[in-house]
Amino acid sequence: MKVDPTHVPISNPTSAPDTRDEVRTRPAFKWREGVAREQIEKLAVEEPLEIRLGGRRFTLTMRTPGNDEELAAGFLFAEGFINDANELGEIRRVRGRKGAPEPNAIDIILNVPADGLRTRLKRNFTISSSCGVCGKTSIDSIRRRVTPPSDSARVAPSVVLGLASKLRDGQRVFAATGGLHGAAIFDLDGTLVALREDVGRHNAVDKLVGYALTNAILPLASHIMMVSGRLSFEIVQKAAAAGLPILAAVSAPSSLAVELAEEIGTTLIGFLRDGTFNIYTHPNRIT
Amino acid sequence: MKVDPTHVPISNPTSAPDTRDEVRTRPAFKWREGVAREQIEKLAVEEPLEIRLGGRRFTLTMRTPGNDEELAAGFLFAEGFINDANELGEIRRVRGRKGAPEPNAIDIILNVPADGLRTRLKRNFTISSSCGVCGKTSIDSIRRRVTPPSDSARVAPSVVLGLASKLRDGQRVFAATGGLHGAAIFDLDGTLVALREDVGRHNAVDKLVGYALTNAILPLASHIMMVSGRLSFEIVQKAAAAGLPILAAVSAPSSLAVELAEEIGTTLIGFLRDGTFNIYTHPNRIT
Repeated sequence: MKVDPTHVPISNPTSAPDTRDEVRTRPAFKWREGVAREQIEKLAVEEPLEIRLGGRRFTLTMRTPGNDEELAAGFLFAEGFINDANELGEIRRVRGRKGAPEPNAIDIILNVPADGLRTRLKRNFTISSSCGVCGKTSIDSIRRRVTPPSDSARVAPSVVLGLASKLRDGQRVFAATGGLHGAAIFDLDGTLVALREDVGRHNAVDKLVGYALTNAILPLASHIMMVSGRLSFEIVQKAAAAGLPILAAVSAPSSLAVELAEEIGTTLIGFLRDGTFNIYTHPNRIT
Repeated sequence: MKVDPTHVPISNPTSAPDTRDEVRTRPAFKWREGVAREQIEKLAVEEPLEIRLGGRRFTLTMRTPGNDEELAAGFLFAEGFINDANELGEIRRVRGRKGAPEPNAIDIILNVPADGLRTRLKRNFTISSSCGVCGKTSIDSIRRRVTPPSDSARVAPSVVLGLASKLRDGQRVFAATGGLHGAAIFDLDGTLVALREDVGRHNAVDKLVGYALTNAILPLASHIMMVSGRLSFEIVQKAAAAGLPILAAVSAPSSLAVELAEEIGTTLIGFLRDGTFNIYTHPNRIT
């Protein structure tokens, strides 16, 4: 396998320092007992990592920066692309055009004969992504694709507060098993339109988008989506594709979820539970 | 696009009945106050769904059966492969060799010119999976790849109970943000070996496997892995690849996680919190 001269080797992959923080802070409005107060919220960082094999793009994962070398090596081993540490040749940071290391791309040179590697890739899976290397490129690509959601949608805080129990009450399978994600669409008065459950967080959202598509109610310009659990970049992306102006979650959004919502124009609500919620972006839609 | 004659059209995709239940029951041991009692547990069903485009394998997702047509349609729309309902030609169940509909495969005939589709696939992503159609095939493929974990590992219930607080205490970023998954490896005395956090559940596990690989402590034959949240098929698969005999989670396992653990020989522990836990498979390792 040829070595790309633009790469820099890392002497000790397991202790390579990561200069980026795993937590980002950001002002948000916390709504409690009729009052919205601005306060600083801490967000878990989410960024894409492109894993290359011998210089060629192999896979892209949304991850929290830190221990990227472990993540890439562990992924290759756990998914059966390498069988032991000897097959892991070298782990390198990819250098960008100006020579600085890319924070979100890593290259692995494997000690596996090309033939053997081809068989393993075939046996497991092959994925090629035309998404760019870094968060910015990914965000740019979604920005090109979606129309900003309607700016006229408005919802009362009391309606927002009521969504949490409606979602929970509708999660029939979760109630039985404790093991499913839920997602639901409501109208701006808080009336439940559709609710779906799935072991996969993204699947529950895809099912709702599929419901809206096949029932000809897209774009969902006068609707709110609420999900159990957390909000990732991909959920914001999917909701934006469906035209949703307001997106809420029981738990925390990631840094990239908030950044994407800010750019697209989505109102992002998190920690919607126990009579309170945070508004991270575009608070104008909350009356 | 050619139509595969082995397919059966579904007249109304949005109301297509699904005959499979979303919940499966299974006996498990519940450990509480020094006693393990057998009781019936309900599990959320997890099964793979293969989505085909015009008869060709396109992507595979682990999902809870039900609303598969919505899931496939919503996925294609939310990811930008189709732009409106008109481009969604027909949704069909794939028929197996004996003519019966496959429960875990669906085919979509798109109303998109071949050229346009090619561009969209390129712009978004292409994925091809050599995993088979149904759960059985996927389970077979993992069974071929992993060595059954060591049968000699033993752990005391008191050690198991102690893992929950050790994991929680180590989740530094979660404590700050409420927004990360955590995973940790312990030895059989309950001593923490490594802990990783990530916005992606699988990434936290991959980081741990990468840690073990690069520190030459694979296979993890005398270790326990514990994860925050739920246990899916993929987590059991990754843990098995690393040789872990015991896998525990704060929350619920899926049906397929339990079935895979049963087959491979992994001891699966769920709902490990508040001084109690469930043992779903291979309880002999808990003394």
